[in-house]
Amino acid sequence: MAALTVSFAGKIGATAPRVANARAAGRVGAAPAVRGTPLRVKSASARVASRDSLRVAATATEAPLGVFKLEYDISKDDATKSASWKQPVIVAVSGAAGQISNHLLFKIASGEVYGPDQPVALRLLGSERSREALEGVAMELEDSLFPLLREVSIGIDPMDVFVDADWALLIGAKPRGPGMERADLLEMNGAIFVEQGKALNAVAKPTCKVCVVGNPCNTNALIAMENAPNLDRRNFHALTRLDENRAKCQLALKAGVFYETVTNVTIWGNHSTTQVPDFVNAQIGGEKAMDVIDDNGWLENDFTPAIQTRGGLLIKKWGRSSAASTAVSIADAIKSLVTPTPEGDWFSTAVCTDGNPYGIQEGIIFSMPCRSNGDGSYEIVDGLEINDWLRERIKKSEEELTKEAECVSHLTGKLGGACELIGEKADTMLPGEA
Amino acid sequence: MAALTVSFAGKIGATAPRVANARAAGRVGAAPAVRGTPLRVKSASARVASRDSLRVAATATEAPLGVFKLEYDISKDDATKSASWKQPVIVAVSGAAGQISNHLLFKIASGEVYGPDQPVALRLLGSERSREALEGVAMELEDSLFPLLREVSIGIDPMDVFVDADWALLIGAKPRGPGMERADLLEMNGAIFVEQGKALNAVAKPTCKVCVVGNPCNTNALIAMENAPNLDRRNFHALTRLDENRAKCQLALKAGVFYETVTNVTIWGNHSTTQVPDFVNAQIGGEKAMDVIDDNGWLENDFTPAIQTRGGLLIKKWGRSSAASTAVSIADAIKSLVTPTPEGDWFSTAVCTDGNPYGIQEGIIFSMPCRSNGDGSYEIVDGLEINDWLRERIKKSEEELTKEAECVSHLTGKLGGACELIGEKADTMLPGEA
Repeated sequence: MAALTVSFAGKIGATAPRVANARAAGRVGAAPAVRGTPLRVKSASARVASRDSLRVAATATEAPLGVFKLEYDISKDDATKSASWKQPVIVAVSGAAGQISNHLLFKIASGEVYGPDQPVALRLLGSERSREALEGVAMELEDSLFPLLREVSIGIDPMDVFVDADWALLIGAKPRGPGMERADLLEMNGAIFVEQGKALNAVAKPTCKVCVVGNPCNTNALIAMENAPNLDRRNFHALTRLDENRAKCQLALKAGVFYETVTNVTIWGNHSTTQVPDFVNAQIGGEKAMDVIDDNGWLENDFTPAIQTRGGLLIKKWGRSSAASTAVSIADAIKSLVTPTPEGDWFSTAVCTDGNPYGIQEGIIFSMPCRSNGDGSYEIVDGLEINDWLRERIKKSEEELTKEAECVSHLTGKLGGACELIGEKADTMLPGEA
Repeated sequence: MAALTVSFAGKIGATAPRVANARAAGRVGAAPAVRGTPLRVKSASARVASRDSLRVAATATEAPLGVFKLEYDISKDDATKSASWKQPVIVAVSGAAGQISNHLLFKIASGEVYGPDQPVALRLLGSERSREALEGVAMELEDSLFPLLREVSIGIDPMDVFVDADWALLIGAKPRGPGMERADLLEMNGAIFVEQGKALNAVAKPTCKVCVVGNPCNTNALIAMENAPNLDRRNFHALTRLDENRAKCQLALKAGVFYETVTNVTIWGNHSTTQVPDFVNAQIGGEKAMDVIDDNGWLENDFTPAIQTRGGLLIKKWGRSSAASTAVSIADAIKSLVTPTPEGDWFSTAVCTDGNPYGIQEGIIFSMPCRSNGDGSYEIVDGLEINDWLRERIKKSEEELTKEAECVSHLTGKLGGACELIGEKADTMLPGEA
């Protein structure tokens, strides 16, 4: 078996114990240009290479690209620095060759997401079709000389890429084809998230935090969660942060204030058109947003569409979807979990409803107001005012998610009813998200 | 005259005095949703609107986009915060709807380039064709809620967009068409940089720093400089930082060390295949790179091609040019001028050769080793060892740039000789840069 490293321009010994095993397994093909003790042989890559699916690893010694190295001599590093370095946080990203990732990976590598003293190892998950593009992304990351980026590896099998992951950012999903219903999309993407959930269960750290972006993200997160019983159910998130950011922006514009003064904005429910942007509990400059804006007609009728049509407008203007601001919102979502939430504020993230204080049906992934102490965990904020306007709409989003859960019950090991979304004419996908 | 603001979700009063004039000139079309004293009426936008070229401004009051506002009530802001805010740095970016800008603008807006307490105003320069895309970029910036981003405005005339600019990042340029020679490209893009140089001269701050990325960037920078006599010639740069970053990466990979230990790397000359990546003065872990690598054959024959073919390889793999890492290198280039250079190190940037210590022909833009005290200025580092290998190649790049300068002498107000590049068969464009 050819065990090969696809390690990135040097890294430190976070997983050094593996080296011995890999050596024992018989490494081949030493890089002529590189000396010293092999620091790491990534079993994941070895497995990929053994299927001949990632030939770049097998030919790393000859390739002129220079991205992939077989060995790295840590003794050449500044000893003091190495000693003071933290263990890298291992971040696996699916859909890594896509537009959103092309922004997000560079943000993570720059240190702005996990902090200025936190080294990062990036694991890029793509498809056979995107393999070359993944290599291109890795080359660009390398050329960017990010001091905190200690490793980039690529792969096409989540069982390889998710090994030891601290975070899994699941961005990749198949777009909805013409004439496809929400039920079809759930089915097609559901299969991906079964596979990824099982892989997380098998090889990721049990503490791995999972953020699902690929649509329909709430139910995709549910599927992954139900297939990964080794991970705490509270580790699973679906992204509603872009909706929250857009909501804050629209409230700021309406009130004529800078968006930084807008706080306590919740997106309730599904990342779909049934989502409920909460102006009831939102604040502007510490006052109730409803009092500051004083225009209930706008809040009840125009505010939600202003958020939900944003993606579609962007596609029309910009010619493609909002990759950059989506990446910003993913970074925001992570930062909200790894830094303490400001006193009195909260953020929106779709999480498992088990034991939630709002009486939402348990066992679905539902966006709610949350706080974090900065250690990666969260608590749902209790006590928000749920008036009739909110209650009615939250109920609708809850019903949609319950139906979605039933439609994928065969993927989550549950006994479910019939999929009521089959033949459903109403389209609740957000515009601009195929 | 309809004076209209295209100000961004609130800003502070950096240019408040203008408001009175604009009001006197008779503002039209107050936004129904916005109250209070108009903070700013941007004369630039007003001029654009008056030509009917930027209709979005004229229809801002009805548009549901919410990006552009007519008025902003600063009294709603937290008074302490506003008082402690610095004046925003005004950054004009050409080619703002392009791929490189789509990365760079978000980096600048996030605060990572100009610092965590430095507010930023972005001025996006595009073409009539890209106007809608510019609006899309502005919307995405708005949805990202960057606390330091105080204004985004868009325009298609540098005379509008460069008003009061502190920095001009000139990324836009026309790509070389099929069968086009370097002389043709110089001529075509030269006209753009004449216009932009004149605009900088007329409306930018005299202290404005200019970084040219659009190719052929050295001579484009020369053209802009010669057309902007009000600006110090030392304020003009052409980007060779991506070349430097790639050079550092290749040296690190060859030596088997982390790239952070590679220092003192110079790119000499033109951003073309005549550029000279300097391994003679480069250091790895404080030692001479030549001693650490101990492979002169590789350094003399393989090192330079490894850097120069990188862009072409990326296009082949990734399907398009290296926008993300180029944006990183532009950010690096700016950061090198606004933060003090680490003791004993330097960075590469192509600057005017007037009075340079290496005997390079004066009056061209030539990449050299520079240091900065962090105030935006630089000094050329003297005393590097120029051995025969370097001298011969530096001479060649100097000759190329001298020829380029002669070819554009009609654009720089100089008496030049014949353009020897006409009919030139040798292609010195870097692969991957059309």
